[in-house]
Amino acid sequence: MVSDDLAWCADAGHLAPTLQAALDDWARTEPLLRLLATDLEHGVIPRDRFHERKADAPLPRAYQWADGSAYVNHVELVRKARRAEMPESFWTDPLMYQGGSDEMLAPRDPIPLADEAWGCDLEAEIVIVTDDVPRGVSREDALDHIKLVGLVNDVSLRNLIPAELGKGFGFVQSKPASALSPVFATPDALGDAWADGRLSGVLNVDLNGQPFGRADAGVDMTFDFGTLVAHLAKTRNLGAGSIIGSGTVSNRDADGGPGRPVDRGGKGYSCLAEVRTVETILDGAAATPFLKAGDTVRIWMEDVRGRSIFGAIEQTVSAA
Amino acid sequence: MVSDDLAWCADAGHLAPTLQAALDDWARTEPLLRLLATDLEHGVIPRDRFHERKADAPLPRAYQWADGSAYVNHVELVRKARRAEMPESFWTDPLMYQGGSDEMLAPRDPIPLADEAWGCDLEAEIVIVTDDVPRGVSREDALDHIKLVGLVNDVSLRNLIPAELGKGFGFVQSKPASALSPVFATPDALGDAWADGRLSGVLNVDLNGQPFGRADAGVDMTFDFGTLVAHLAKTRNLGAGSIIGSGTVSNRDADGGPGRPVDRGGKGYSCLAEVRTVETILDGAAATPFLKAGDTVRIWMEDVRGRSIFGAIEQTVSAA
Repeated sequence: MVSDDLAWCADAGHLAPTLQAALDDWARTEPLLRLLATDLEHGVIPRDRFHERKADAPLPRAYQWADGSAYVNHVELVRKARRAEMPESFWTDPLMYQGGSDEMLAPRDPIPLADEAWGCDLEAEIVIVTDDVPRGVSREDALDHIKLVGLVNDVSLRNLIPAELGKGFGFVQSKPASALSPVFATPDALGDAWADGRLSGVLNVDLNGQPFGRADAGVDMTFDFGTLVAHLAKTRNLGAGSIIGSGTVSNRDADGGPGRPVDRGGKGYSCLAEVRTVETILDGAAATPFLKAGDTVRIWMEDVRGRSIFGAIEQTVSAA
Repeated sequence: MVSDDLAWCADAGHLAPTLQAALDDWARTEPLLRLLATDLEHGVIPRDRFHERKADAPLPRAYQWADGSAYVNHVELVRKARRAEMPESFWTDPLMYQGGSDEMLAPRDPIPLADEAWGCDLEAEIVIVTDDVPRGVSREDALDHIKLVGLVNDVSLRNLIPAELGKGFGFVQSKPASALSPVFATPDALGDAWADGRLSGVLNVDLNGQPFGRADAGVDMTFDFGTLVAHLAKTRNLGAGSIIGSGTVSNRDADGGPGRPVDRGGKGYSCLAEVRTVETILDGAAATPFLKAGDTVRIWMEDVRGRSIFGAIEQTVSAA
């Protein structure tokens, strides 16, 4: 259990040995964990300094990771770069893929990259975690099953994607392990920033120490998380601990055109594919390269007081 | 731990609380489990009757379920029915999709089906389970990471598939929960039937009590399990307990044409889509309907002595 200011932590092992175990029995564990959180905030129990750089992923492996594409602006832009038409139905029927969940990287884990020709990209996204969700759940009821909120870096190998999408069976090799933020928060802890199944606020992305993305996660999110959960659960139950992603956060530019870089007054990008697309649209060719060994990616959000909410995902690409 | 004849079982909880826990630490648990198995066969430890109908799935939830399409004959036939061309690369580059693994049905669980218009189908397949597999593993080394072998009924909602494949992101709603066989076996326990990453023997499928499929799993398997594991692990590690499927088992007819039904001397089919395809090719239209409430599916394999190897998957479709 981590304090709201991410400065302190307390052992919760007596309530549940793992976060998965807590989610398996959330009705019992949630009130106990809340009491522990209150005690931790008041400093009335033994506590240790929390060092987010030492944190593992909240769920180092999960029974499910499914990623939506709720920011349809992103989908439209990336398709444009591939010269692929975007069906009109993408505005009403969520795109979603089943991801590998057997290894979720820790927030400071390197991004292993055996071949730079694969076109390694980051994707900064919001994720939620559910308890058990019944098959056929409505969008409204699905909202009640959202127990935790956090961040993910959904690493993508862009140059492997066209061939895999061409096969129609989704991503296998083109989506290696994703990294989770050090801390996940309950929706109520997010205050007004969490409303109607969406998280508002700037999703900060720095690339090699420079501001790269400053999009607002609450803007241009066509499908809220309730809709995404209901979409996934249409034909099957979802097990507790299911992680569901928003897809790459992406805002339209103020004039409705493709987004501008942060250093030109825009909100920037949450993945390289998008800046490369904008460059292609504006200049005829992509100039920003994909990630290479030594590149660093930093992803985080702050609350209205400027405090880090989930801690930072901070990864360096490693030739391995 | 279940005896080879599936008649007896013994508690293995003192060695590992779950099969997942055993796989997490297989180097330590495997020799202990083997000793337990020997003691069980010799009847020198407390044992109970094993009732496969009471068995849960060996992994009721798993951290990964990825399904190949190793029987390319099946892929070619199903595509033919959809009037979709099959790229030549499908003979050399495995098709594979990431499936939902948060709920693996027990072998006797009903198949819940809210809407018969979804076109519910069975798919009888072989699965293997790995321990931890390192990224970039070779096909040969991958074979050593195959620790268990079993069966799956990979339930599919055929009428939801074309729209999802059209989106390119793979299966989400069109692949509800799959059911596993009551027992998984180690490769060496399969004797000569397991060789070169393939399991030989007839995969029996009965539909409503009538023989429906009698294909040999060792025949026409274009990609062996070592190749499938290596394909999945090309860009990422695989966590212990990853379940990897063969895809629907399918044999060519002796004359090279589409397979004939069992009652016409053929090897039949391991899914309804295939018989419907053959009917379409031969008669111009599919005659066999998809599954409806009350239909029963039975899937099992026998060893050379006619003993059930993995127990039977036996499911009834339930309107729910």
